Amino acid sequence: MMKGSLLYEGKAKRVYHVEGQPEQLILSYKNDATAFNGKKKDQFEGKGRLNNLITSKIFDYLKQRNIPSHFIEELNDTEQLVAKTTIIPLEVVVRNIAAGSITRRLGIQEKERFNPPLIELFYKKDELDDPIINDQHAYHLTDVNKAELDSIKDKALEVNALLANLFKQTGLDLVDFKLEFGRLADGTIVLADEISPDTCRLWDDKTGEKMDKDVFRENLGDLISVYKIILQRLEEHTCAK
Amino acid sequence: MMKGSLLYEGKAKRVYHVEGQPEQLILSYKNDATAFNGKKKDQFEGKGRLNNLITSKIFDYLKQRNIPSHFIEELNDTEQLVAKTTIIPLEVVVRNIAAGSITRRLGIQEKERFNPPLIELFYKKDELDDPIINDQHAYHLTDVNKAELDSIKDKALEVNALLANLFKQTGLDLVDFKLEFGRLADGTIVLADEISPDTCRLWDDKTGEKMDKDVFRENLGDLISVYKIILQRLEEHTCAK
Repeated sequence: MMKGSLLYEGKAKRVYHVEGQPEQLILSYKNDATAFNGKKKDQFEGKGRLNNLITSKIFDYLKQRNIPSHFIEELNDTEQLVAKTTIIPLEVVVRNIAAGSITRRLGIQEKERFNPPLIELFYKKDELDDPIINDQHAYHLTDVNKAELDSIKDKALEVNALLANLFKQTGLDLVDFKLEFGRLADGTIVLADEISPDTCRLWDDKTGEKMDKDVFRENLGDLISVYKIILQRLEEHTCAK
Repeated sequence: MMKGSLLYEGKAKRVYHVEGQPEQLILSYKNDATAFNGKKKDQFEGKGRLNNLITSKIFDYLKQRNIPSHFIEELNDTEQLVAKTTIIPLEVVVRNIAAGSITRRLGIQEKERFNPPLIELFYKKDELDDPIINDQHAYHLTDVNKAELDSIKDKALEVNALLANLFKQTGLDLVDFKLEFGRLADGTIVLADEISPDTCRLWDDKTGEKMDKDVFRENLGDLISVYKIILQRLEEHTCAK
């Protein structure tokens, strides 16, 4: 496995080519934390490792449950091998409980439950601050058609059910999370990007304590010790099975 | 027809009860113009009359083409009789051509055509600045269900086709417009509110000149003379038939 040239650097990850494997990429998780579309920034020693290990565990768990994704394998503490995809510029957010932007945007009380879970689409475009969009906007702004978007939403709800169950077993409520999807070379759409406390809201189901990037957004304490607990609980659950 | 007590005063209209007719209301059009959610305000002598007459003509035209609405009849220059409805707090926007907020929000070029026409939903809530929402938000925030919202959207597209055709015959491109719907006492959903140059974007199809409330929003000239032209063209078209 020879790491090739840098393809792209995002806020939280670097993406590298793989020598001799044009259909694979290496994701290298950085220690950077950003919030509010990059307006708040910091670095946390060990964050890249934690998010790589947590994401790898979660994508493994999903793969075992027949959710197709770009994930191939964990390579080392901060890197994973993935299938090369062209990312669809949509953030697919699934909400089980109201928290964060939706409470301010729509005047919904924090902690209100959505039943069925609520799906929101955001157009990934930094210059526009990732605006919320509807299905028709998505057809206009991206290359997804109706059948594909319906299938993306079904997949997001399936992932939600699986992850809510996984986290529940580790004593966490899955409040909401963000998914991204990408197209493989043959056009097939698969789950991509990462799934970590950077992209999920997780609340301790006993104390209600926030166990995710809101610790950084809202200055609630030490991010790394919280992310370590998430990894540890996921590892314990995996071992116990 | 005895005008009863004031039920409600909005930005552009007053709504009165009708003595002895609990299922009817009188809409009285004001001369006020507001834009940017009330941040820009002015008064224009004659505006109430023009919007009442234009809206009456348009609802008549739609009634003749089997679009059920709250409209019963024009009472006088500034007032119309309507069936009492409970307004659903949704603004249903149909866009044929990109203009206004969508160009800033999504980075779409002004004048880009939407084919099929694009429908957007906004949650009518002044305190929240009428945020854009998706279908699932609408189910959560209002009392409409999926079948009802689908039917509202179908109706909006039908109105769009009829109005685009009507305005085209008067030399105007229907760029976009906003509809509101309300429930009659028996729960039936019908078209309500007004349809006027306050709620439609209309461009002269030869010169591209803006012939609607953007004249006020963007300080482009004399609002009243523009609204008079719209009424006159609609009247000529009606007489010519």
